[in-house]
Amino acid sequence: MTLLNPSVVLNKIDEIVIEDRPVPKIEDPHYVKIAIKKTGICGSDVHYYVHGCCGSFVVTAPMVLGHESAGEVVEVGSAVKTLKVGDRVACEPGIPSRYSAEYKSGNYNLDPDMAFAATPPYDGTLCRYYLLPEDYCVKLPDHVTLEEGALVEPLSVGVHSCRLADVKFGDKLVVFGAGPVGLLVAAVGKAFGATDVLIVDIVEDKLQFAKKLGVATHIYNSSGDRGKSLTETKELHKAAFGDQLATVAIEATGNEYCIASALHLLAPKGRYVQVGMGKENLGLFPMGIVGEKELTIKGCFRYSVGDYETAVGLIASGKVQVKELVTHRFKFEQAIEAYEVVKSGKAIKAIIDGPE
Amino acid sequence: MTLLNPSVVLNKIDEIVIEDRPVPKIEDPHYVKIAIKKTGICGSDVHYYVHGCCGSFVVTAPMVLGHESAGEVVEVGSAVKTLKVGDRVACEPGIPSRYSAEYKSGNYNLDPDMAFAATPPYDGTLCRYYLLPEDYCVKLPDHVTLEEGALVEPLSVGVHSCRLADVKFGDKLVVFGAGPVGLLVAAVGKAFGATDVLIVDIVEDKLQFAKKLGVATHIYNSSGDRGKSLTETKELHKAAFGDQLATVAIEATGNEYCIASALHLLAPKGRYVQVGMGKENLGLFPMGIVGEKELTIKGCFRYSVGDYETAVGLIASGKVQVKELVTHRFKFEQAIEAYEVVKSGKAIKAIIDGPE
Amino acid sequence: MTLLNPSVVLNKIDEIVIEDRPVPKIEDPHYVKIAIKKTGICGSDVHYYVHGCCGSFVVTAPMVLGHESAGEVVEVGSAVKTLKVGDRVACEPGIPSRYSAEYKSGNYNLDPDMAFAATPPYDGTLCRYYLLPEDYCVKLPDHVTLEEGALVEPLSVGVHSCRLADVKFGDKLVVFGAGPVGLLVAAVGKAFGATDVLIVDIVEDKLQFAKKLGVATHIYNSSGDRGKSLTETKELHKAAFGDQLATVAIEATGNEYCIASALHLLAPKGRYVQVGMGKENLGLFPMGIVGEKELTIKGCFRYSVGDYETAVGLIASGKVQVKELVTHRFKFEQAIEAYEVVKSGKAIKAIIDGPE
Amino acid sequence: MTLLNPSVVLNKIDEIVIEDRPVPKIEDPHYVKIAIKKTGICGSDVHYYVHGCCGSFVVTAPMVLGHESAGEVVEVGSAVKTLKVGDRVACEPGIPSRYSAEYKSGNYNLDPDMAFAATPPYDGTLCRYYLLPEDYCVKLPDHVTLEEGALVEPLSVGVHSCRLADVKFGDKLVVFGAGPVGLLVAAVGKAFGATDVLIVDIVEDKLQFAKKLGVATHIYNSSGDRGKSLTETKELHKAAFGDQLATVAIEATGNEYCIASALHLLAPKGRYVQVGMGKENLGLFPMGIVGEKELTIKGCFRYSVGDYETAVGLIASGKVQVKELVTHRFKFEQAIEAYEVVKSGKAIKAIIDGPE
Repeated sequence: MTLLNPSVVLNKIDEIVIEDRPVPKIEDPHYVKIAIKKTGICGSDVHYYVHGCCGSFVVTAPMVLGHESAGEVVEVGSAVKTLKVGDRVACEPGIPSRYSAEYKSGNYNLDPDMAFAATPPYDGTLCRYYLLPEDYCVKLPDHVTLEEGALVEPLSVGVHSCRLADVKFGDKLVVFGAGPVGLLVAAVGKAFGATDVLIVDIVEDKLQFAKKLGVATHIYNSSGDRGKSLTETKELHKAAFGDQLATVAIEATGNEYCIASALHLLAPKGRYVQVGMGKENLGLFPMGIVGEKELTIKGCFRYSVGDYETAVGLIASGKVQVKELVTHRFKFEQAIEAYEVVKSGKAIKAIIDGPE
Repeated sequence: MTLLNPSVVLNKIDEIVIEDRPVPKIEDPHYVKIAIKKTGICGSDVHYYVHGCCGSFVVTAPMVLGHESAGEVVEVGSAVKTLKVGDRVACEPGIPSRYSAEYKSGNYNLDPDMAFAATPPYDGTLCRYYLLPEDYCVKLPDHVTLEEGALVEPLSVGVHSCRLADVKFGDKLVVFGAGPVGLLVAAVGKAFGATDVLIVDIVEDKLQFAKKLGVATHIYNSSGDRGKSLTETKELHKAAFGDQLATVAIEATGNEYCIASALHLLAPKGRYVQVGMGKENLGLFPMGIVGEKELTIKGCFRYSVGDYETAVGLIASGKVQVKELVTHRFKFEQAIEAYEVVKSGKAIKAIIDGPE
Repeated sequence: MTLLNPSVVLNKIDEIVIEDRPVPKIEDPHYVKIAIKKTGICGSDVHYYVHGCCGSFVVTAPMVLGHESAGEVVEVGSAVKTLKVGDRVACEPGIPSRYSAEYKSGNYNLDPDMAFAATPPYDGTLCRYYLLPEDYCVKLPDHVTLEEGALVEPLSVGVHSCRLADVKFGDKLVVFGAGPVGLLVAAVGKAFGATDVLIVDIVEDKLQFAKKLGVATHIYNSSGDRGKSLTETKELHKAAFGDQLATVAIEATGNEYCIASALHLLAPKGRYVQVGMGKENLGLFPMGIVGEKELTIKGCFRYSVGDYETAVGLIASGKVQVKELVTHRFKFEQAIEAYEVVKSGKAIKAIIDGPE
Repeated sequence: MTLLNPSVVLNKIDEIVIEDRPVPKIEDPHYVKIAIKKTGICGSDVHYYVHGCCGSFVVTAPMVLGHESAGEVVEVGSAVKTLKVGDRVACEPGIPSRYSAEYKSGNYNLDPDMAFAATPPYDGTLCRYYLLPEDYCVKLPDHVTLEEGALVEPLSVGVHSCRLADVKFGDKLVVFGAGPVGLLVAAVGKAFGATDVLIVDIVEDKLQFAKKLGVATHIYNSSGDRGKSLTETKELHKAAFGDQLATVAIEATGNEYCIASALHLLAPKGRYVQVGMGKENLGLFPMGIVGEKELTIKGCFRYSVGDYETAVGLIASGKVQVKELVTHRFKFEQAIEAYEVVKSGKAIKAIIDGPE
């Protein structure tokens, strides 16, 4: 028997099943129905799988997983103007209230009532059919693949962070963390004009991959620096930009030693953006140099107005290459296996096909 | 015998003397010679007196104290265009290099080669005659007193911090610390348009003084909150703005619990400026909420382009009242006594007259 | 017979009638029903009355007039959270589409599909009952009158223009035009911190009124300057700020000689905002000095996110006094007479009561 | 006899001679002496040659020509820290006063006392030896040629304008004018991330050259549009970006019809920068749409802090190719011939070697 809307459901910790769900119907005329074709697995999905929670969000009822998806429009609501059946789109997973103050002021990512896919209690995108408002779908140009479309979600995090940091031509950018997010932050930073991009990590393989991808102009393995005082780590400073300091730092690990190092690497009036989520309260923070150098630090939460469009534009223009990040590909039926592989740490990015 | 240029000199820890120094001569044609008339005592002066150092600056040779001064122009260099003998001026104590990259880009406060009065190895302003470039003197209108002129220095710190925080009409501002700097930050914040100004401190007398001065619309004594988790301090939140959060926080204590509280009090997209100097490395910092709320944190170092002019303007317009801060006044000959009084913690602001 | 929803309807040029209209029903749960209590008459209303059009908007069918209103909430939709029956509110007259790109990016005033009261084909607010989404009603504090609430609309234009111009403490502001909008621009500029406010007009009575209101620190009658070249009008420059130039100019006449004068009065890096609407294409524009002085010119269209809230805040705080602007008051039944008075030019601001 | 400091001198209209001038000596310790190696000819140089003036600057005494130069450091003052003999540098031609308010606030290009090469009464750079402060020389990396170094001057105009316009990834940029400045504006705009760049001109050859250079993604010949109303020129709109409008316009002709067209092509909240200098007062300016769309217009005067460094960086990174602009090369002795060729309009950019 063919399932009508097969969906990858997390029942509870360590229990993922594929089950049928009702096919959703368009009720709001601004919505479209999308046949999901490609979905990436994110660290947060695995966190729910292993721990049953992510930050303050706790899974208390079965929830469809997945929030990095692209698909094809199969039906459009009566008020839809910009999309038609057959269009291939990248899917934004978070839908804010149109009546929130945050939406009105151009910061919809901060709406406290955001309905975000695969974040309890909202179901995710790993299913056959998914509904979205038309303006939360970004059309893919013909030469952009659906797999690339699925990578728009993490790329948008890179876009949002580089926008908050106002990265532009001539910037010297240091990125901490060489996982998918760090790599995409670096890629966007380079596309936005950073002339020097240093990536710091403690895993040599990841750094070599970053170098091979071409997103880093410099790499530094900080595994030997733990325990040293921050002012002792001259090698890092040297690796960074010789005698110069960074103009921008984007931190994608959340680790407090990395955060402190990043702030030490910045030049006066330097800009810092925190992307990685780590401990709620850090036990080390070099406020002295924040004052002395008049640094600016910004928090970064998901992505907002225009970020998805820019991410698609970066892929379409060839300025950012995302497909090399995909190391593993799975059929929809292999979804559970896919989660196991990502859990094991072997994949940079794994993609699951939509159901046939 | 009359001293030619009597000066208050810190010889070493706990040893201040008044001695004669050579009368300085104008060599650079852009300079003016000022007869110093009023000088305020700052916490950093006392720190040098008691500890022989302030941050990384260490007194290794006798140094003239004082950097919050106003006086009268007694001689002008040949290139001076905007000042004449007899003009009463507020004196900026820090002279940057005109050739530094920081000066060129409009951030002279960050010039690493800044020559700052009463910061080793540079002598301060507690003397009869002092030299300054004309554009580091701000002329006082007739109705502004020289004593008010001496308070322009700490007021400029308030101006710089409120500028970095972009305080404007309608802001809900919380200031931590009710010492002279905190009071002046609050006063500038109110003058810049903040409609609600909450001052937090642990000393009830200071809070009552803040209330009496009219710079705080709300006050909160946080002395009972130590040890509570940040999310428990509902009273502070309530005292702040009822059900609302602050749009701007300016922290003038440097204390890590205050810093954490300030960040918790901010609304999404809130702006935070660190004015107070505390520990070089904090042992507590709530980075989680910085990310979730996309807060912006800025370091603040002294003051920069236009801040002194704005501070004089605030006094001249009556928007900021500084004279009520002066609790003690001393003759030049009583300078040592003045330092003792400030050291004892009895004074809010003490002013020393120039030599007769 | 009592009319259910008496409304002031413009049938065609020169023909205003009061007729009954159906009482509107709340269909969208985010809406509230308001009993309109006070409505100001705006120049654009009169323009429709006299010319049948305003800019590109042409009256082709009977239309209810009025868009500067305040009233009392008499019914709330099921999703309304922030208002209750009995609340007194200022009413925003323009409702954008929640799905427009302009709304999403924080610029709802630029939504091309805006439904704006008393702008064809949308009916205005001069009636007994009017519907609005809750977030387009701003609650009035107890000490703010409904008449002041009606003046929030033109005051919001002042707020929006001063925000675009980034008026702040210490600015030297010149405003061209001493009509209601010019006066309110000046009032907001002063409240935002401008220390010098020059108002320029050709009608001496208006200038004297501006002076009496306390919104202008300086006034200048430019009636004798027509025909002089811009560089000849030394008197204007002198009247402005002595030897200094303005840092901000806000132009509320639309007249090309005023525009040129305003640009000539600006200092290097000066900021200029065009509020007044005049000819679509100017026959004189001093682009040379725009380049030489690197001026910034911004267009200004109505008001946007937060402007209404700020306008209410300015009235509530006492920083802006609007009630002195009201020179004429009419009963609802006298609406036609009210339009005649405004048409004659005798009123600064006329207010019409709601129907009893 | 060898001339010590042969210099290309404009004696008066139509009279250029090569004559010997004294070799300048370093007096200020922050200065270096440069042996000029390559100098480009600018339109303003030719204007002085043909008309004896440029804007308000009038040649009343013999003046050395040239201000687009690169050379080699042959001597350094005692305070110089960043340059040494043998360094190859691009030379900024305008030296502001270090004591001006404009310099202090980060806008040295607006200093009214600027000493600008080949602008009366200041001699230019077409000589053997020229003095400059070290921070007005930007070191060229080894792989950047001296000829490219001479093109840094006009490229800096492109950098400054694109900075004022805040061009970034995804912008749709329209540039009016396909002369050297327009081409370099477009090149910088593309390097800063504009994804669509339309160049408009009335000379087909120039447009084809722009296309060949790769700086324009679209071109439009507007020679047939004169006389049409702005709203009729649908072809231009179509050529621009199909159904979309530009987000940024940079105008490099100064022509009032081009200016009006550029403003019509902009989307709401679009940004416009005026680079080209035309008539002091325009006889046509569409202020109506500036208001309706809330456009921002900025004047642009030369270049300022960091622009020269960025221009060198753009060349060094390969993001901007300048050498294809050079169509004519001359020996120093052929300088007069070079001016004749540029005057004839045959050259895009002509370069004169330094004296041997």
